[in-house]
Amino acid sequence: MKKGTLLYEGKAKQLFQTDDPEVIWVEYLNQATALNGAKKDQINGKGELNNQITSLIFDFLASKGIKNHFIKRLSATEQLIQSVEIIPLEVVVRNVAAGSFSKRLAIPEGTALKKPIVEFYYKNDALDDPMIIDDHIRFLEIATGEELAILRQMALEVDQALIELFDSMAIQLIDFKLEFGRQKDDTILLADEISPDTCRLWDKKTQEHLDKDIYRRDLGDIIPVYQEVLNRLEKRGE
Amino acid sequence: MKKGTLLYEGKAKQLFQTDDPEVIWVEYLNQATALNGAKKDQINGKGELNNQITSLIFDFLASKGIKNHFIKRLSATEQLIQSVEIIPLEVVVRNVAAGSFSKRLAIPEGTALKKPIVEFYYKNDALDDPMIIDDHIRFLEIATGEELAILRQMALEVDQALIELFDSMAIQLIDFKLEFGRQKDDTILLADEISPDTCRLWDKKTQEHLDKDIYRRDLGDIIPVYQEVLNRLEKRGE
Repeated sequence: MKKGTLLYEGKAKQLFQTDDPEVIWVEYLNQATALNGAKKDQINGKGELNNQITSLIFDFLASKGIKNHFIKRLSATEQLIQSVEIIPLEVVVRNVAAGSFSKRLAIPEGTALKKPIVEFYYKNDALDDPMIIDDHIRFLEIATGEELAILRQMALEVDQALIELFDSMAIQLIDFKLEFGRQKDDTILLADEISPDTCRLWDKKTQEHLDKDIYRRDLGDIIPVYQEVLNRLEKRGE
Repeated sequence: MKKGTLLYEGKAKQLFQTDDPEVIWVEYLNQATALNGAKKDQINGKGELNNQITSLIFDFLASKGIKNHFIKRLSATEQLIQSVEIIPLEVVVRNVAAGSFSKRLAIPEGTALKKPIVEFYYKNDALDDPMIIDDHIRFLEIATGEELAILRQMALEVDQALIELFDSMAIQLIDFKLEFGRQKDDTILLADEISPDTCRLWDKKTQEHLDKDIYRRDLGDIIPVYQEVLNRLEKRGE
């Protein structure tokens, strides 16, 4: 497999062509952003940690029967994935109130939700990723009603699998963001990454943040925290 | 029927007890507000116009089989309504893109929507009436899933009836906001008001605003515009 030309550069990853049109070469970057890119920093080691964490988690999800785009990790910062057309939605699953949910509804952070809540946000930097409803999604022709049902179902399956995974690592899964993509035959695959950049993870004993809120809220250095998540993931596999 | 003590004072109406616990006496005020109350003015004649317009529209909706709280108009600014427990949701129905929908999704005002879009906003001044989804509504115990299905169904029935009504008055119904309430036996009634304060109405020939956007956007005096809507409603009944 050969690394080809740059196809896309996001906030945290670069995507490259390969000699197989169905396979993409991903390079995880050391860039951290928050507030829709208004806050931005280079953080050495972040790309490596998220690449390793995401690789382990996507392998775990595949073992649970959740179809995803991950093929294999190539190096510290690189992985191969299936080529998909990304559906421009951020699918957020919440188990415990935090972040924008707490602000929007004045629910204190840490309040347990009786049932997981699934929200859709329109991936659109110019619009600041607004929350949208099914009617909006259909009007914008982002996804069909059938696809939305699949996204909800898969998001809840990922939630169940990740709760189990993180629970075994003494971590409480507060909420997380997923992205999905379509293959050429319209099969929907879980895509993007799952890492402390995209999840809220609280240590079960200390309630400390083990996620990007450390960066968003200027609570310290994210590297030891992300490393701790990786350590616990790797220990679990032993 | 006797007017009793003040129960509630909103931005545009006062509600009073009567000697019948199931009946409320409403006084329409001359106050106009926008931007969640940040813009506020006394506009003589507004209460009278909205009371008359709402009375005619709720009578029309009742004739179409839509259960609502309206009993009868008492005077220029007063009406009697059924007592209900208001469900703290603003139910917005959109036929054409405008206002916050256009801003949220960058859809030009005036873009026709293929199907009506129903949105729910949480009536909560402190939170600035955020848009919310069914999962939020259930978590907050604002309404049950069954009630939400009824609200959506009734909102779409009101939409069909109002499109017909305004069409006969050479007015295009762009969007509108409804509120609903529960009677003691949990029957859901359409409540609040339907007026140029709560609808976007565009003149079919000139495309001019015949609604509160005149006030929100500082386009002139609302009184002649609201009077024009009332005139067309009354002419229709002749």
